Amino acid sequence: MSSNMHQFESVFRQVVSDLRQQCREDYKLPAQVWEWFEKSLLHNTTGGKCNRGLSVIDSARLLLDRDLTPDEYFHAAILGWMIELLQAMMLVLDDIMDASHTRRGKPCWYRVPTVGMKAVNDAAMLESAIYVLLKKYFKHRSGYVEITELFHETAFKIELGQSYDMLIGPDDRIDFSNFTMEKYTEIAVYKTAYYSFYLPVALALLDTGKATARNLQQAEEILIPMGEYFQVQDDYLDAFADSAVLGKVGTDIRDNKCSWLVIQALGRCDKGQRRVLEENYGRGEDDGCERVVKGLYRELGLEGVYREFEERRVAEMRGMIERVDESEGLKRSVFEELLRKIHKRNK
Amino acid sequence: MSSNMHQFESVFRQVVSDLRQQCREDYKLPAQVWEWFEKSLLHNTTGGKCNRGLSVIDSARLLLDRDLTPDEYFHAAILGWMIELLQAMMLVLDDIMDASHTRRGKPCWYRVPTVGMKAVNDAAMLESAIYVLLKKYFKHRSGYVEITELFHETAFKIELGQSYDMLIGPDDRIDFSNFTMEKYTEIAVYKTAYYSFYLPVALALLDTGKATARNLQQAEEILIPMGEYFQVQDDYLDAFADSAVLGKVGTDIRDNKCSWLVIQALGRCDKGQRRVLEENYGRGEDDGCERVVKGLYRELGLEGVYREFEERRVAEMRGMIERVDESEGLKRSVFEELLRKIHKRNK
Repeated sequence: MSSNMHQFESVFRQVVSDLRQQCREDYKLPAQVWEWFEKSLLHNTTGGKCNRGLSVIDSARLLLDRDLTPDEYFHAAILGWMIELLQAMMLVLDDIMDASHTRRGKPCWYRVPTVGMKAVNDAAMLESAIYVLLKKYFKHRSGYVEITELFHETAFKIELGQSYDMLIGPDDRIDFSNFTMEKYTEIAVYKTAYYSFYLPVALALLDTGKATARNLQQAEEILIPMGEYFQVQDDYLDAFADSAVLGKVGTDIRDNKCSWLVIQALGRCDKGQRRVLEENYGRGEDDGCERVVKGLYRELGLEGVYREFEERRVAEMRGMIERVDESEGLKRSVFEELLRKIHKRNK
Repeated sequence: MSSNMHQFESVFRQVVSDLRQQCREDYKLPAQVWEWFEKSLLHNTTGGKCNRGLSVIDSARLLLDRDLTPDEYFHAAILGWMIELLQAMMLVLDDIMDASHTRRGKPCWYRVPTVGMKAVNDAAMLESAIYVLLKKYFKHRSGYVEITELFHETAFKIELGQSYDMLIGPDDRIDFSNFTMEKYTEIAVYKTAYYSFYLPVALALLDTGKATARNLQQAEEILIPMGEYFQVQDDYLDAFADSAVLGKVGTDIRDNKCSWLVIQALGRCDKGQRRVLEENYGRGEDDGCERVVKGLYRELGLEGVYREFEERRVAEMRGMIERVDESEGLKRSVFEELLRKIHKRNK
């Protein structure tokens, strides 16, 4: 674990302690209520890579172009943990909807014995925790209202993207006519790009007092395509990564997901191969069907197609970053660092 | 349907139209995403009694001691629909956790064909809708931040109450030692009283500019016990009401709920009756067991015990209402009206 991660995790102990205080001391709820919530917090919020949370800190440092003071670090880290809580809430729900088994190398929360469907309420509590922290640490700072609204709007965007994703890949029938690049991109933007890329940078801009309309707009213009690229990587890794490295077992094929890979396959296959796809995609727990689809992906050379896409998209983003106007305090380095972190990732 | 309800429902059409605009025009999402959300909004937010939503309007009118202007009515009604959305979100999740079948005379949302576990995301969207409306109509009015925080805090309280409720009535084993009046009261306060009674009045106080610390505190002191009383009614109706009138089939007995009735039964039964309870309470779908428990409730005279409790509690609340200090603009009539509405309700 990097030293970055150690310092960030030390702030998580404060987060847990703040939430404990809210439950036990302010609300006077009994120990068992707090202990359950704590179990959910630890299971669902930790154990990931914390890329989104750490991005707030990295972005704030790059925007200020100096080391953060301890107080600046702390506030950026709290914002980072708020993103991690938002993500934790969404992952708990996603796993239930996808009937997933594992997440970050552990069983999904709803599959933990004695949890079950209580998980849906625990997810709501993870989201509520965001606003406990926000009020405690940001109420008397500038940007409080803007940060609050940004979390509301980002949560809604993720939910809309999730809804869209499920509508076009219903698990009861296979309809490839829905699987187009246009729909794919809209889903990726709503479900992933806003909270994973735009949110950390927008929070850092708000927290460092550099959130001018122009800076926020430039950030959005670069970070949304970056998030799209990240989602394509995710889909690629779902089928092609080592699940031990990835920390989860991919389920896109069995769950009939509108994955970048299946769209590429549909655009490249002949009639016979299309029939193979139709007969084997979205077939639930049937390992044989999943294997057939993966074999077809290899036959169609999708690994190479992915590598080409990656290099082209990265070159485009480098061009956009070069053209960033830094006159209102935005820094190219914020985007360079994010791109560096995800380029050629394997988990 | 009362004319009150008609006028309130006309504001719901505006709510739907605002959310449509956000999805279709601002976010440019395709029709199918919006149509799914609209179906969920209609199914989950309408068809109830709207007591909580209407309470904001009644309370605002009583606080101002005059008819509301159309603009005042509209804003109070939007706040009312925001409570109804919060409740809708919680009910969708509750029904999943309780494995319920019906709600407001319709199947529970997650049991509607093609919905299933997508319902957990739909619930999150119902909550997000609150903040779309809040920003649109209240951003430039006083009380915006306070109303936002009140919704965050109230949602968290409901979730904590829900979590507590599930922890002491786990569905895998019967442990009556957890079923005490103290725990019962804490759960009722968090899960029900805050959002059903305190929230509408606090919103009306904020919206009419009368939310002094003293007024909010007096409101809380009366409305929390009123909410407790309401929850006791709810538990009573779960077992004793006509399910056609109630609009749902009670599941407290089969779900091993820490109901006011089972606590009363435990305090009044002899050894043999306790064994009957132990053998028949919390036995899931077994109708026979549920019938045995209901028979025991009658044998123990719990209908009479409930009537006595009701009269005593109502007399206490009338006393508290009489002692309200109106010097900062709070009105006794706000509480009298709420009490009038729930006293001796049968649904």
